[in-house]
Amino acid sequence: SAASLCRIKASGLKLQLCTNETQATRADFVRKLRAMGFDVSVAEVTAPAPAACRLLQERGLRPHLLVHHDLIPEFAEIDKTNPNCVVLGDAAEHFTYANLNEAFRLLIGMEKPVLISLGKGRYYKETDGLKLDVGAYMKALEYACDVEAEVVGKPAKSFFESALAELGVPAEQAVMIGDDIVSDVGGAQQCGMRALQVRTGKYR
Amino acid sequence: SAASLCRIKASGLKLQLCTNETQATRADFVRKLRAMGFDVSVAEVTAPAPAACRLLQERGLRPHLLVHHDLIPEFAEIDKTNPNCVVLGDAAEHFTYANLNEAFRLLIGMEKPVLISLGKGRYYKETDGLKLDVGAYMKALEYACDVEAEVVGKPAKSFFESALAELGVPAEQAVMIGDDIVSDVGGAQQCGMRALQVRTGKYR
Repeated sequence: SAASLCRIKASGLKLQLCTNETQATRADFVRKLRAMGFDVSVAEVTAPAPAACRLLQERGLRPHLLVHHDLIPEFAEIDKTNPNCVVLGDAAEHFTYANLNEAFRLLIGMEKPVLISLGKGRYYKETDGLKLDVGAYMKALEYACDVEAEVVGKPAKSFFESALAELGVPAEQAVMIGDDIVSDVGGAQQCGMRALQVRTGKYR
Repeated sequence: SAASLCRIKASGLKLQLCTNETQATRADFVRKLRAMGFDVSVAEVTAPAPAACRLLQERGLRPHLLVHHDLIPEFAEIDKTNPNCVVLGDAAEHFTYANLNEAFRLLIGMEKPVLISLGKGRYYKETDGLKLDVGAYMKALEYACDVEAEVVGKPAKSFFESALAELGVPAEQAVMIGDDIVSDVGGAQQCGMRALQVRTGKYR
């Protein structure tokens, strides 16, 4: 809750929010949270898109983006000409037949196809029902191109490592709190952190 | 060629065409072949949709169809009310985000999800470029619902068995001729048939 977050900060503990949100920029995400009373800033958010940007820059990769339109600003600084990899996010209604074929053609045409996925969720729930998540489309492209995607975002070890780096805290001094036993708890433990599962959110 | 087909028939050998075509009914497929000079009838064609229909009827399954619109007439005799399985074909432009979510929701809502796929091809080539084939969408639904699809069509053993049944010939007296080492040659061999690979068609 907003109050617990406030108490954590007041106690002097460092805090980083780890989210797999890929339908909005961190700025939009923070705006939404602030409107709900949470005192957070963009620097306190670790999200898959910036993690992907670091990976792209480290390896000199130029992405073709198949992501949600609202996420595109996160990739503003990235060279996207003459793509040598595909970055896949939860594109939602932008997962059209044409867009999927376009990403597939680019990928299979590469000398060494590189597929980076901003998550590997199976599905999620919206007010109008269940939706296929990015993981399903990742599997489709993996199969068609005979490649294995590199997943950034939870539960990837590198994702938690970058959150720790942003905190400036070693794994053994950090605690991950989340409602997902695989993405939150499992991912953090793989990274050497302790983890707490809360019975709120999507817990059941 | 049309001439070789003619000679085979004239020699008294029985003949059955085994196709994974799922974008048209057998009637349309035969019409196209006849226009090209091939002397074939609908009864001489073994295709995935009729194989799926037999399977549906044997097991009392009522499908939700995510297939090409031109294939739907093949399922005219099948009860499609209150679906208890999903039949997936190469739906091409009907692979929309909405249609995929609809098939997914039905599948995951079933007590025991049954996914029947009319093939498992990775991709194919059309005049305007490569397209994702049914296998990619099959993988997406398999992952999201944690099920394994039952594949009818080549290289499924049952597919070749039904072609043999239509011929009234045992496997050891039949020869499969095709250009695909997995779908044609491999599938036929698994079924106890001899097989010849031709270096035409998509062979490279």
